[in-house]
Amino acid sequence: MAVKSTHFLMEDTVKKFELDTPALMLDIDLFNRNLELMRDRAARAGKKLRPHAKTHKCPEIAKRQIEAGNCAGVCAAKLSEAAGLAEAGLENILITSPVTTPEKIARLMNLHSALPGLMQTVDNLENANALSVAALKTGKPLPVLVDLDPEMGRTGIRFADAMEFGKHLAKLPGLKLMGIQCYCGHLQHIADFQERTSRSRTYMSAAAQIVRDFRAAGLNCEIFTGTGTGTSEADFAIPELTDIQVGSYCMMDAEYGVITGPDGKPLDSLYPPALTMLSSVVSTGHGDCVTIDAGTKALYFTPAAPPRAIRDGKPIPGWSYNWFGDEHGSLSIPEGQRPGPGAKVELIVSHCDPTVNLFDEIFVLRNGEVIDVWKIALRGCCR
Amino acid sequence: MAVKSTHFLMEDTVKKFELDTPALMLDIDLFNRNLELMRDRAARAGKKLRPHAKTHKCPEIAKRQIEAGNCAGVCAAKLSEAAGLAEAGLENILITSPVTTPEKIARLMNLHSALPGLMQTVDNLENANALSVAALKTGKPLPVLVDLDPEMGRTGIRFADAMEFGKHLAKLPGLKLMGIQCYCGHLQHIADFQERTSRSRTYMSAAAQIVRDFRAAGLNCEIFTGTGTGTSEADFAIPELTDIQVGSYCMMDAEYGVITGPDGKPLDSLYPPALTMLSSVVSTGHGDCVTIDAGTKALYFTPAAPPRAIRDGKPIPGWSYNWFGDEHGSLSIPEGQRPGPGAKVELIVSHCDPTVNLFDEIFVLRNGEVIDVWKIALRGCCR
Repeated sequence: MAVKSTHFLMEDTVKKFELDTPALMLDIDLFNRNLELMRDRAARAGKKLRPHAKTHKCPEIAKRQIEAGNCAGVCAAKLSEAAGLAEAGLENILITSPVTTPEKIARLMNLHSALPGLMQTVDNLENANALSVAALKTGKPLPVLVDLDPEMGRTGIRFADAMEFGKHLAKLPGLKLMGIQCYCGHLQHIADFQERTSRSRTYMSAAAQIVRDFRAAGLNCEIFTGTGTGTSEADFAIPELTDIQVGSYCMMDAEYGVITGPDGKPLDSLYPPALTMLSSVVSTGHGDCVTIDAGTKALYFTPAAPPRAIRDGKPIPGWSYNWFGDEHGSLSIPEGQRPGPGAKVELIVSHCDPTVNLFDEIFVLRNGEVIDVWKIALRGCCR
Repeated sequence: MAVKSTHFLMEDTVKKFELDTPALMLDIDLFNRNLELMRDRAARAGKKLRPHAKTHKCPEIAKRQIEAGNCAGVCAAKLSEAAGLAEAGLENILITSPVTTPEKIARLMNLHSALPGLMQTVDNLENANALSVAALKTGKPLPVLVDLDPEMGRTGIRFADAMEFGKHLAKLPGLKLMGIQCYCGHLQHIADFQERTSRSRTYMSAAAQIVRDFRAAGLNCEIFTGTGTGTSEADFAIPELTDIQVGSYCMMDAEYGVITGPDGKPLDSLYPPALTMLSSVVSTGHGDCVTIDAGTKALYFTPAAPPRAIRDGKPIPGWSYNWFGDEHGSLSIPEGQRPGPGAKVELIVSHCDPTVNLFDEIFVLRNGEVIDVWKIALRGCCR
């Protein structure tokens, strides 16, 4: 696959704490370690990765995920994300949400005509018919997956309706049925590993039964894709699952730091936070708090998992981030440790996906020096 | 003031419901009405506007606010916002948060050297000294305001420390003391108008006393700037207040729709929501809900004031928006009214400032047709 590089080099050596703030930073060694670990764990379970670009919005990262190996392709949440990945040279892109408006269907077909391996999920007969009619005009059947709804109510059809829907899809001349998608978004952040595993396997085992039913009925079902960073270990045990749509594992965040992994320890002890944010103190003298320049325009607002202040990669005991509006955050800090105006602080971000979506670039660091800057080319691609 | 136009025209006529989604839209007639109303109400109270660009991040809107008249200048929350406004031709920019790091102070001085009427708030002696030293090198004193903290704890000094701080500032050779800023960010969304008025006047009256004290002590205090859309009516009654830092009034949002105005009715009956979002249905068949393509990457997550579905400018009875992740939202809709896949819905946004910060352009509409597209040039300027 030809992949254009989207990074650009800075002229001078810049040290981590010299960066203007707020700044998104990626520790390249931790990032590489996370890529290799998920690749290897999946490979041992006989699964491919189909890493989700909604997390990082960065073609350079997608490219490196592919280059790390054992990938079936990449995922995009929206058509505009897929178009951005294609523009950067990525192929074999699965769009994981339905594409339903006439404008978007026309754009989808333009992309499909130009791009090898584009695949689309569907969950509605009317929409499937419209896609088939449009794809017929391109002269190239559109590969599709049946999207199953694991009782989340977001996208997907009910498990009980899957067979009838699959049979309908298989008859549509403009579509090529490839298999199913089942993504349990509502389970990814269940704190306890055992509970998460048990609940995920219930849905994924039922989805696996549909895979077997499809195959028994002569429907093509070579792909069964699903899972995320939170449920990946659970779902490795599902034999029919072909590939996993993991996203956050490469960067990680505070949300994934408060759930447990297979060893009962926080999941970020397995996949450490490679992504952090540098922020500066803008105001002091407010009791035990200092005010910093990273508010909810820089850090996605997640009441349940606020950013965590770290030093040398480790949480600083007694320091806690408080949400404080669009422009600023507040750090509660024990007496005697409070930094003055202009001091820099490093934070594990709250939730990586929508935080990355607030920035145009990620500063890539090795041993405290900026070695590269990657463009978040898909930032704002919510269409 | 020379103001470069930042808008660009689309080639063909596009109707509102033909826009690709999610899309930010601005009704130009409601927008103009809001500009004129706030201008006139402030003028009747003898106040100027200093509209805050953190709300809209759009030089074209800042330009129109200035052109509407009765403005003392514009506000920027961050240095990078000010730089973006200056690049678009705006002058007389007040940066309403401290600028504290050496990198930022150097950039501030570059901007100050090039731009007429740049003004900076300060709340710390060490920072004031650093600004003075840097400004001396430019050969042009930096106009500054003392930032007062109305017991919010974000930025600003305590009222009791203002006089001593003001006297210190007045002696610094690189700075030119211009007055004070007092912004009650924590009061803007108090639901009840009377309570909001009472609490805001307590702080603003105390700040007015500092203005009188400064003047009596021979300190220059020609500017007393503060207030926002929520407290503007309350603070019109403060004689010393010279100008108001209103932001949301021009666009409005669901947060400002749940607080009352001076007539006891929702504030958005006075300043109607000019900003809305167009979204599309992506999935149906989920009980009483349909899934739309606007999640928290398109609409800022505010649990207290979710987006509101509207039709012909009026809320649709029985329709309610439910937060449903980064990529999607959910609309609860009564039976018989649920639209199918691909249907378009219009929403009042949750909180305008950080929602605008997610997009690159605003589609400007008159009578349901796109008449212009304004670039949100300061999107992502959080530094």
